[in-house]
Amino acid sequence: MKIKYELIKNNKEDENVRLGLLHTNHGTYQTPIFMPVGTLANVKTLMPEELKACGSSVVLSNTYHLWLRPGEDVVNKAGGLNKFMNYDGPTLTDSGGFQVFSLAKPCDISEQGVKFKSHIDGRSLFLTPEKSIQIQNKLNSDIAMSFDECAAYPSTRQYIEQSMRRTLRWAKRGKDVFDNPNQSLFGIVQGGEFEDLRYESAKETVKMDFDGYSIGGTSVGEPKDIMYNMISYATKYLPKDKPRYLMGVGDPIDILQGVSRGIDMFDCVLPTRIARHGNCFTKHGRINIKNAKYKEDFTPIDENCDCYTCKNFTKAYVRHLITSGEVNGGRLLSIHNIRFLIRLTEEIRESIKNDRFEEYKEEFINAYKNDGNN
Amino acid sequence: MKIKYELIKNNKEDENVRLGLLHTNHGTYQTPIFMPVGTLANVKTLMPEELKACGSSVVLSNTYHLWLRPGEDVVNKAGGLNKFMNYDGPTLTDSGGFQVFSLAKPCDISEQGVKFKSHIDGRSLFLTPEKSIQIQNKLNSDIAMSFDECAAYPSTRQYIEQSMRRTLRWAKRGKDVFDNPNQSLFGIVQGGEFEDLRYESAKETVKMDFDGYSIGGTSVGEPKDIMYNMISYATKYLPKDKPRYLMGVGDPIDILQGVSRGIDMFDCVLPTRIARHGNCFTKHGRINIKNAKYKEDFTPIDENCDCYTCKNFTKAYVRHLITSGEVNGGRLLSIHNIRFLIRLTEEIRESIKNDRFEEYKEEFINAYKNDGNN
Repeated sequence: MKIKYELIKNNKEDENVRLGLLHTNHGTYQTPIFMPVGTLANVKTLMPEELKACGSSVVLSNTYHLWLRPGEDVVNKAGGLNKFMNYDGPTLTDSGGFQVFSLAKPCDISEQGVKFKSHIDGRSLFLTPEKSIQIQNKLNSDIAMSFDECAAYPSTRQYIEQSMRRTLRWAKRGKDVFDNPNQSLFGIVQGGEFEDLRYESAKETVKMDFDGYSIGGTSVGEPKDIMYNMISYATKYLPKDKPRYLMGVGDPIDILQGVSRGIDMFDCVLPTRIARHGNCFTKHGRINIKNAKYKEDFTPIDENCDCYTCKNFTKAYVRHLITSGEVNGGRLLSIHNIRFLIRLTEEIRESIKNDRFEEYKEEFINAYKNDGNN
Repeated sequence: MKIKYELIKNNKEDENVRLGLLHTNHGTYQTPIFMPVGTLANVKTLMPEELKACGSSVVLSNTYHLWLRPGEDVVNKAGGLNKFMNYDGPTLTDSGGFQVFSLAKPCDISEQGVKFKSHIDGRSLFLTPEKSIQIQNKLNSDIAMSFDECAAYPSTRQYIEQSMRRTLRWAKRGKDVFDNPNQSLFGIVQGGEFEDLRYESAKETVKMDFDGYSIGGTSVGEPKDIMYNMISYATKYLPKDKPRYLMGVGDPIDILQGVSRGIDMFDCVLPTRIARHGNCFTKHGRINIKNAKYKEDFTPIDENCDCYTCKNFTKAYVRHLITSGEVNGGRLLSIHNIRFLIRLTEEIRESIKNDRFEEYKEEFINAYKNDGNN
């Protein structure tokens, strides 16, 4: 079946803020949600049970990576992405667009598609909107994404305009070949930092009637206020009965700002990527566990955190693992960081239920001051 | 309390083969056992619960590594090794001798101790029998090992003799400073491939009355038949009421041959080390999961294996993770390989109970033919 979004309530103080339900082939989940990234059909160092224990609902994988390895046919023969990775919650695949533009440079964009070199072996590859959808149809994720161009920041207005219109044509082409009754397809709103272009993109994308809408082209180096504007410009024109997904955003403050602007779904590699370098989220900002002051700190990262790491291990132990280059260090911090973001969305949902999202947001941001390496 | 070994029964057909109980501060366990290696106070990629699920009893850590990072004082302040790593089963620490000789080359051995350079930063270090014991006393493992020299193979008889006698003097010096009522201390039998030297070493070590005895100087490049002889030479002279530990041995056939010769305890990095390269144990020998023939093999590594990996994932998926360089691939194979060796010891114990160890051993060895990269 297709995904269904059910709006449960808006926050009293701010009509943009939404509490909803996402009905999927793999269960019903409250939104807003944070979706951990499992690039190659696995969230780095974590197993499905650990994701579930973190409260994870949807897990995201990357079409570009799975296309190259192990290939969409292998995943398809395994019974699709869920069965392949043995995850019984919903899965989402991106379109491969972002990876092509960020990993496989230089790439050559034409109306037809994108020519680029594999980041693994340098061989020439060609990805088109149709091909991206066909791969995703075979991967059989619960949610597939349209193939779009994620333009760099800054780009000229002229480039953004032309790229956004091509993305609209690509969305149409992808939708036309889409062929999987158990999969939903999301459209992507582009248009950079220009309100009228975001409007045009949103309006035209919505006309094509996708199962959900995503905001693309953020988190590509633009200042935060511009990013927040991009979100506002787009969500303003999106229908209320479809889920809205802000791609590639996982900073706690950005999640709060996204929810403020009507976002339901977030994903980001941030919690696992920073974990491998010893960084972890706390209510008071990010800390780096490698800091010498944690050497004999036999308390958990966060006394109030309910994650596996905080319930079982001390800062001193995690620091030891990280400074010794042990994989388990990154694993323990990944668990903590993913749980932190999922718990943030749980608290956000609770605050919407109680009509105090604005208050919660302010409290969180005030406490989360030290966003650096403590 | 000190560890206690209780002999339950010998195999009917072969009096050397022993089923026993190891009473420790952290529970009672049947022997023979296989002990996974957690070099830096963690078994690479596994958590304590996963070790328990594999059936693990004792976990081994390395004194040399923990001395350098995080330092024995940090572990001591954490409440000892068990608390530091949050493992509630028994722990064993080696003496650091083997690591000094293998990792920190070149090293300069004198009667006093060993001068060598840190493998991390090259600074000069000096380890003595007293220092090794003092570090281990602080690490507070359940079982500490005497500091010995593990001579290379081949070495001259003259060198082995002189090294073995020095190891005896080192054992005495270590025992004299040993000071931890909750820890047990094992002596180590050296003497290379020479029966009379093994005899001398065993006899003199036993005179010092340790809580258990270990056979050292094996698995250092000698042919298998010589290694098996080394074991026989040593165990012949060891008391029946103390546990016997064969250091650094984890090949399935070697475990069976060790049990045949009266060994109760084994440890080895093999199951986790080969896992990272895609190798895994099966009843029919080792296979390498990277082999192209597993690309679309949607069956588990071993249909009859009860490990987490085999119950949840296919060869195709594990192969995908390994070939893509994902840590979870090594993790899943580490789980399988550790469980394989622990299950082997479970089956060995069952066969001793039923007086059919010789039969079991023969069946296993016959099936385990293809010890290569299938």
